[in-house]
Amino acid sequence: MEQERIRCKKLLDRVMTSDEAALLIKDGMNVGTSGFTPCGYPKAVPLALARQAKEGRKVQINLMTGASVGVELDGELTEAGVIAKRLPYQTNKSIRSAINDGRVDYIDQHLSHTPQFVRYGFQGNLDVALVEACAITEDGNIVPTTSVGNSPTFVQEADIVIVEVNTSQPLKLEGMHDIYIPQDPPNREPIPIVKPGDRIGTTYIPCDPEKIKAIVITDITDKVRPLAPLDDVSRQMASNLIEFLKSEVKVGRLPENLLPLQSGVGNVANAVLAGLLESDFENLTFYSEVIQDAAFDMIDTGKFAVCSGTSLTPSEEGLKRFKDKIDFYSKKIILRPQEISNNPEVARRLGVISMNTAIEVDIYGHANSTHIMGTKMMNGIGGSGDFTRNAYLSIFLTQSTAKNDDISCVVPMVSHVDHTEHDISVIVTEQGVADLRNKSARERAVEIINNCAHPDYKPMLQEYYDEALKKTKNDHTPHLIGYSHEMHKRFLETGSMKVK
Amino acid sequence: MEQERIRCKKLLDRVMTSDEAALLIKDGMNVGTSGFTPCGYPKAVPLALARQAKEGRKVQINLMTGASVGVELDGELTEAGVIAKRLPYQTNKSIRSAINDGRVDYIDQHLSHTPQFVRYGFQGNLDVALVEACAITEDGNIVPTTSVGNSPTFVQEADIVIVEVNTSQPLKLEGMHDIYIPQDPPNREPIPIVKPGDRIGTTYIPCDPEKIKAIVITDITDKVRPLAPLDDVSRQMASNLIEFLKSEVKVGRLPENLLPLQSGVGNVANAVLAGLLESDFENLTFYSEVIQDAAFDMIDTGKFAVCSGTSLTPSEEGLKRFKDKIDFYSKKIILRPQEISNNPEVARRLGVISMNTAIEVDIYGHANSTHIMGTKMMNGIGGSGDFTRNAYLSIFLTQSTAKNDDISCVVPMVSHVDHTEHDISVIVTEQGVADLRNKSARERAVEIINNCAHPDYKPMLQEYYDEALKKTKNDHTPHLIGYSHEMHKRFLETGSMKVK
Repeated sequence: MEQERIRCKKLLDRVMTSDEAALLIKDGMNVGTSGFTPCGYPKAVPLALARQAKEGRKVQINLMTGASVGVELDGELTEAGVIAKRLPYQTNKSIRSAINDGRVDYIDQHLSHTPQFVRYGFQGNLDVALVEACAITEDGNIVPTTSVGNSPTFVQEADIVIVEVNTSQPLKLEGMHDIYIPQDPPNREPIPIVKPGDRIGTTYIPCDPEKIKAIVITDITDKVRPLAPLDDVSRQMASNLIEFLKSEVKVGRLPENLLPLQSGVGNVANAVLAGLLESDFENLTFYSEVIQDAAFDMIDTGKFAVCSGTSLTPSEEGLKRFKDKIDFYSKKIILRPQEISNNPEVARRLGVISMNTAIEVDIYGHANSTHIMGTKMMNGIGGSGDFTRNAYLSIFLTQSTAKNDDISCVVPMVSHVDHTEHDISVIVTEQGVADLRNKSARERAVEIINNCAHPDYKPMLQEYYDEALKKTKNDHTPHLIGYSHEMHKRFLETGSMKVK
Repeated sequence: MEQERIRCKKLLDRVMTSDEAALLIKDGMNVGTSGFTPCGYPKAVPLALARQAKEGRKVQINLMTGASVGVELDGELTEAGVIAKRLPYQTNKSIRSAINDGRVDYIDQHLSHTPQFVRYGFQGNLDVALVEACAITEDGNIVPTTSVGNSPTFVQEADIVIVEVNTSQPLKLEGMHDIYIPQDPPNREPIPIVKPGDRIGTTYIPCDPEKIKAIVITDITDKVRPLAPLDDVSRQMASNLIEFLKSEVKVGRLPENLLPLQSGVGNVANAVLAGLLESDFENLTFYSEVIQDAAFDMIDTGKFAVCSGTSLTPSEEGLKRFKDKIDFYSKKIILRPQEISNNPEVARRLGVISMNTAIEVDIYGHANSTHIMGTKMMNGIGGSGDFTRNAYLSIFLTQSTAKNDDISCVVPMVSHVDHTEHDISVIVTEQGVADLRNKSARERAVEIINNCAHPDYKPMLQEYYDEALKKTKNDHTPHLIGYSHEMHKRFLETGSMKVK
C-alpha cells in the first residue's frame, strides 16, 4: 500500500501514528482541514486529538474547514472542548449546540471567501493544514479524496502540513480534481473557466514536501448523512420549479438546455434533480458545490453532460455505484477548490441557475438561510450567497410551513436576512411560484402572499400588508415597524404562529 | 455645429424639435435613458414630454436610467404623472415622494444588474433608448457625454434610439469613454480588465444608424447637486478610516499604495478623498462609479495615477476646472458602462477597497442603505452591493447619530437589510472603527457597541445585548425577537430614540 499511496520516497519516514501527529497541533493554533459536506475530511488525527484532550491535554484550536465535516472532526472535538472558534460552515449537532450556548464562536462565512481571507491574512496565521489524501505524488504533491474544499489554500499557507492517507478512498479518484489557486490582488488574472467542464489546473495540490511533517494512514470511511426519501411536498416544489423553467424556455428567456445548474444540498435539491430526470430537458450542465446521488442518474441517462463541484457526497449505495463505474464517472465529474466552484466571477459568467433552500422568506423577497427564529444558528449560509448574488436566475425554495403548520415560512419580515430583495429572482413553495423580477416591493408582496403562502397563513399576511399600507400611507416598503415579528414572537411564546 | 457634432451625413435629416421627438415615446412604453448621478442625462425631450402630458396627452412610461438623473427628467416627468415604474436608482425629491405614496412603482436594483437584466429579457421589451451625446460619428455611433451608465445596452437593445446632442458638453470628452458590452451566458468571456486603467472597448457606443429615429440639439447643462462643505463629523470619520488603512499597511495586509479605491457619492466620500489628499499615501488608483471634484485634486497632486468610473460629476467650479485642463484630465480618467465599472468579477479581481455610507448599521454588522425607519425609500442601494460583496475590504461609514442625536445610527437590528453580516469587514463612525473580520456575531456586537456607538446610546445598546444574551442563553445571534425594533418604534411614536 505505502508504495502505491506514498510515492515520494523521502516522505516514508514521516509516517506516524495519529496520536503522534495530533501532538503537532498545539494549544491556540489555527488549523485548516479538508472536508466538505461530510466528505474528504480528516478522521484519525481529530479522533486522537479529542482523545488526548479528554485525557487531560490542554488544547484548544480555531478550526477552519471547507464546509461541514463528519462526527470524527466537529462532533468529537466539540465534545472534548477542543474547538474555540469555528468557520465557515457546519451541520453537526454537537457543534451547533456549542455555537448556540456560547461555548464556540462561529463565523458564518461565504464559502468562496474563506480561502482568500486566509491568504489576505484576515484570519491570522495558519499554523497547521490537516488534509485527507488518496495519495502523495513522487514530488510530494497531494491528491485529495472526495472533496477539495479549501485544502489547496490551507496547504499553501500553513506552516506545517499533516496528511491522512485514507485507504478507503479509491485511488481512481486521482485525475478528477482540478486545482487552481488564484493570485491575490493586485496581481489576480481572470479565472479562465468559460464552460462548466473546463479544466484549468493540476490534478493534485502543489506542496513542498518539506512542509509535510506527518503522514497518518487510516481507513475510516466518510460518514455521509443519509437522504430522506422524497416526500410529496418536496416533489411539488420541484415540480413547480421545473414548470417555471419550462415556461422561461418557452418565452425565450432561457436556452432549451437551460444554463448551468447550481443546487443546494439535501432533500429538496435531490427532488429537483429527480424532477429534471423525469423531464424532457436534455444536455444539461451542473456547476455547483456538491455532487449527490441524483447526479449519477443524470449522468447515466446523459442528461448531465458534465458535473462540476467541490465535493462528491454519495450515500452508501451511491458510493458503491460510483466505485463500480468509476472509470465512467470520473470523466464526467470535476472536483474544484470551493473558491472556484463557488466563484462569483465564474457563476456570473456562466449564468448559473441557482436553486437554494431558505428557512423562511418574507413578503418583500428577503430570505433567511441560517437562523431559527432569528437567534439560533442552524447550519450557515454556505455557498448560497456566492451563487445567488451572481446567478442568471436566483431561485429560493422553501416549504410554505414547518413544524406541522405551526410555523409559516412566509412571514412579514424575516427574522434574519442572509439574502436581500436585491438578490432573489424567484421564490418557490409547494403552493406555487413567485416571480419577483421587474417588480417593486409592493408588487412583490402581492405576488408572494398570493402564490407562495400557505392558505392557513394567507389572511394573516394579507392583513399585515394591508395595515402596513394604510399606516405608512403606501410607503415603498410598507411595514409595521415594531410589530413586524409578531408571528415569530407568538411562536416563541405559544409554540405556534397561529392565533389560538 | 452640426458638421462637427453630427458627422454621419445621412442622419442630418433626423434632426427635429424636442416636441416632435417626444411624440415617438408612446403610452405604455419601456424607455431607457442615459444619465448617472445627475450627469449626462437627456433633458430637452423629457421636458417636452412632461409639457405634452401636462397639456393633456395621455402618456405613462416605465423609466430606466443609469442611476440618478436631474430635475428635467425625474422631477418634471413625475410632476406630470408620466412615470409608472422606475429603476434602478433615484435621488430626486419629487420621484421619492411618488415612490413613497404609491404613485410610482420603484425597483431598487444593483446597478450592475440592470443592463444584463434588460438583455436577458427580464424587464420587458425596451421600446426606446433616449441618450445624450457629445457627437455622432461618421458611422452613426454615439459618443456619450459626462456619464456612460447603461446607454450602451439601452442603445443595443431598444427598438428605436433618440439622441440628444448636447452642445454644452465639451467635444473633448471624446476619447475618455471605454465601451464594452459583455456577451450573455452561455457565451460570456472573461472581462479582460486586470488593472484599473485598462481599456478594453471602443470610445463610442456602437449603433446602427437606421435605429436613430430622432436627433434633438440642446444646450441645457447638467444639474449637479452642490456638495456641502466638509463638516467635523465627516472629517473625523475619514480620519478614522485613514488611520485604519495605515494600520493595515503597517501589519502587511495592504500594499503601501493600497488597492483600487471605490468610494460612494456625497460628503463623506469627499471627506475621505480630502483626507487621503493630506495623507502620505502615493500612487493610489480609483476604480469606482462616480468621479467628483475631489478626484481632480488627487490627479493634480499625482496621488491618483488613474481614475476609472462611469460618471464624471463635477460641481460648477469643478466643471470649469475640468474644462480648463481637459487634455490633461482626459488622459487620467476612463468612463465605462456601469456594468463594467461596478462589475463583481472585476471588483473581486482588482481587490477594491469599497467605502460606502449606510443609513444605519446594527450591532451584528448588517447595514441599511436605503430605507428610513424601514419603510420609506431614501435613494436606493446603487452600486454599494456590487462593490461590497466583492471587495478586498468592505467598509461602511455612518455617523453614529442623526437628527440632532434623536436617532442612533447603531441599532440592535436594522429596520431594512441591504448588506448582510457576511459582506461587511469594517464599520466606521466618528466614534471609531469596528473591525469585524474573523469575529463571531457575539464578538462583533461587543466591537460595534464599544467602538462605533454614540455615548448617548451605548448603555441602551449594551442593555439590549445583555438581555438578549440572557434570554436566548447565548444563542449565536442574541436578539429579543419581537422587541428588536423598539428604538425605531420609539422614534416613530415620540420623535426620538431616547427614553424621555
